[in-house]
Amino acid sequence: MAKPTTTTPKKKPNDTDEKTLSKIEKLATDTLKAVEKGLNPTVNIRTRALSNVAFNEKKRIIELGDKMQGREFFNTNMARKFMQTFLVANGAKTLIHEGKTISIRQMFYMTKHTLRGTDENTFEDQSESDPIIEDLEVTIDALREELHLFANKRGLVVGNLTVNDAGDEIDLTKMGRGGWGIPSICEPDQLKFVRSKAEFVLVVEKQAVWHRLNEDRFWEKHKCVLMTSEGQAARGARRLLQRLATELKVPIYILVDNDPWGLYIYSVLKQGSINLAYESMRMAVPGVRFMGMSAFDYKKYSLTREVQIKLTKEDIARAEQMKKYPWFAAKQWQKEIDETLKNGFKMEVDALLTKYISFITDEYIPKKLKDKDFLV
Amino acid sequence: MAKPTTTTPKKKPNDTDEKTLSKIEKLATDTLKAVEKGLNPTVNIRTRALSNVAFNEKKRIIELGDKMQGREFFNTNMARKFMQTFLVANGAKTLIHEGKTISIRQMFYMTKHTLRGTDENTFEDQSESDPIIEDLEVTIDALREELHLFANKRGLVVGNLTVNDAGDEIDLTKMGRGGWGIPSICEPDQLKFVRSKAEFVLVVEKQAVWHRLNEDRFWEKHKCVLMTSEGQAARGARRLLQRLATELKVPIYILVDNDPWGLYIYSVLKQGSINLAYESMRMAVPGVRFMGMSAFDYKKYSLTREVQIKLTKEDIARAEQMKKYPWFAAKQWQKEIDETLKNGFKMEVDALLTKYISFITDEYIPKKLKDKDFLV
Repeated sequence: MAKPTTTTPKKKPNDTDEKTLSKIEKLATDTLKAVEKGLNPTVNIRTRALSNVAFNEKKRIIELGDKMQGREFFNTNMARKFMQTFLVANGAKTLIHEGKTISIRQMFYMTKHTLRGTDENTFEDQSESDPIIEDLEVTIDALREELHLFANKRGLVVGNLTVNDAGDEIDLTKMGRGGWGIPSICEPDQLKFVRSKAEFVLVVEKQAVWHRLNEDRFWEKHKCVLMTSEGQAARGARRLLQRLATELKVPIYILVDNDPWGLYIYSVLKQGSINLAYESMRMAVPGVRFMGMSAFDYKKYSLTREVQIKLTKEDIARAEQMKKYPWFAAKQWQKEIDETLKNGFKMEVDALLTKYISFITDEYIPKKLKDKDFLV
Repeated sequence: MAKPTTTTPKKKPNDTDEKTLSKIEKLATDTLKAVEKGLNPTVNIRTRALSNVAFNEKKRIIELGDKMQGREFFNTNMARKFMQTFLVANGAKTLIHEGKTISIRQMFYMTKHTLRGTDENTFEDQSESDPIIEDLEVTIDALREELHLFANKRGLVVGNLTVNDAGDEIDLTKMGRGGWGIPSICEPDQLKFVRSKAEFVLVVEKQAVWHRLNEDRFWEKHKCVLMTSEGQAARGARRLLQRLATELKVPIYILVDNDPWGLYIYSVLKQGSINLAYESMRMAVPGVRFMGMSAFDYKKYSLTREVQIKLTKEDIARAEQMKKYPWFAAKQWQKEIDETLKNGFKMEVDALLTKYISFITDEYIPKKLKDKDFLV
């Protein structure tokens, strides 16, 4: 059972923390006021459903609309979730007061307890607490990072950038082969960019590709920051990328496998995702550029049949679906996806090695950069 | 198609590389000699099957026995694999010459090509090349790391240790919240321990637990190295741990979830695994100590029912199976596994948070250390 061990803050909250705390307190006092007036206390939550998600053509991001749902205390269908919302809010308040961050799994444990005199648990499992966290985020308009909660971290970074993280100055040109683990929470109060001469940021999907480029010291020759998302980018990696784009003001190139899954990874980085539409403002980076792999690279780089992996039925269906997304409506994207379908095969970035080991470092990427050969 | 771009080494091979190269060359010259004598060229490979795996009670590791299989060139069932073995050996030779390392996926691409004048590929997919890599490892007695091949890396480390990796000096007390990514290959030619005042190494299974301890700066107060394997330990993490054990000569504590999967993670770290039995000598760390979570912790730390997760049928079957392993034959282990079965529930380390956020940092681990409360 979560025991807020103290009500006096252990750490002086920073500006962001102050704001978040006052949002949580407003939620609580509004509810109390309703009780005092003899009204049915209600929390208004923006609807997190496809029906309330739209692509903003101007901002080029996927956004959550304004449709609201009320969550009422005096409603047998809603009372449990109403209580849960306040348990999570209270947990977040404790975390901010203590200056600590925990995972969403840990938040489940923090807020789970058996209601006194009953057999009922406040939360049965994490599938119950995760949506409540998202509800709270949209309700008080605070990202989970601001609630001191994190999802698992994933991704590594090296290159022409020195950061200060939680008080430690870290020179990312001196990370050996290991790289620096991208923190789960990349907000400015903890992570600061100290200096950088990077001319661009390169994000690769696969760890082994990142390893190849790091071993070849690509980031040194080309003055860049080199990141791997290790698959679908985690929240920390997305937020870091957004901050690199706005604060360093350098172009960001994405290199993913030539398949619908790679395209999806790029797409989420660029315009956000339907599931997390309410966070696009803080997570999406509409300026990122698609470096590859392009379906046209097969001919352009004289690749051979060793690189071909036959498209599956699912790949084809997914590609057809992607062609219909408004963010892929532009002619160049339709051509790109059509070429994959015409090829009948997909390709992995790893497969560039069929030319020679450092082909990607010595020829493929340099030519892409020189020719400005990328899609937006 | 793999094109060894050069036969003259691009980088001066180090001692390990020299040894590996001569092993590869011996494999080739032995085969040539057989051809010259008009014999059937044969590669002898230690059998990698359960029938050739045993627990060495004295060394306390799972070892591969001496049973051999011959792989003959003039044998329609073996000719393909015979060829593949030499393709991989040739690929490794190129990598060593160029001073580069690649993933086992990339080795598949490097050695895949269509045989001239036919439709046949040297390798159809990676499931064909991976076992050949393992064959080569046991045949010439060289770890895949020595063949310049790596599996995906996983795991993070911080704490009282300064390393030099690939020429970069890295102070692991100054890694912020991100931590240093444990390299895939942790051999002494690239990764050196520069200095350390660590009194022990703590390995936790879960990233979020590592985060809690890192945020609380546990490693500072307790002078230790803090590592997360992020689930089952990758080869890099295992090798790093073995080197920490032998070179720093400090105790190593393992903290995993109280369930059969957690026990398995501990077990692989300690005595190696059946699948990779031929690598136990370089990977297993028989001295590691099991800190928890123990089934007895429930009472010992007055945990409450919020931490309980009911054992599944699979959990029970797996626990019963583990009781029969010779490395869990000792009385204390039988008691430990029996207690889990008696409890009827499993527990996650994350669940310690039901006491209070930093209970693990402030009470749980310090008490374990003070009471020397661990199993071996």
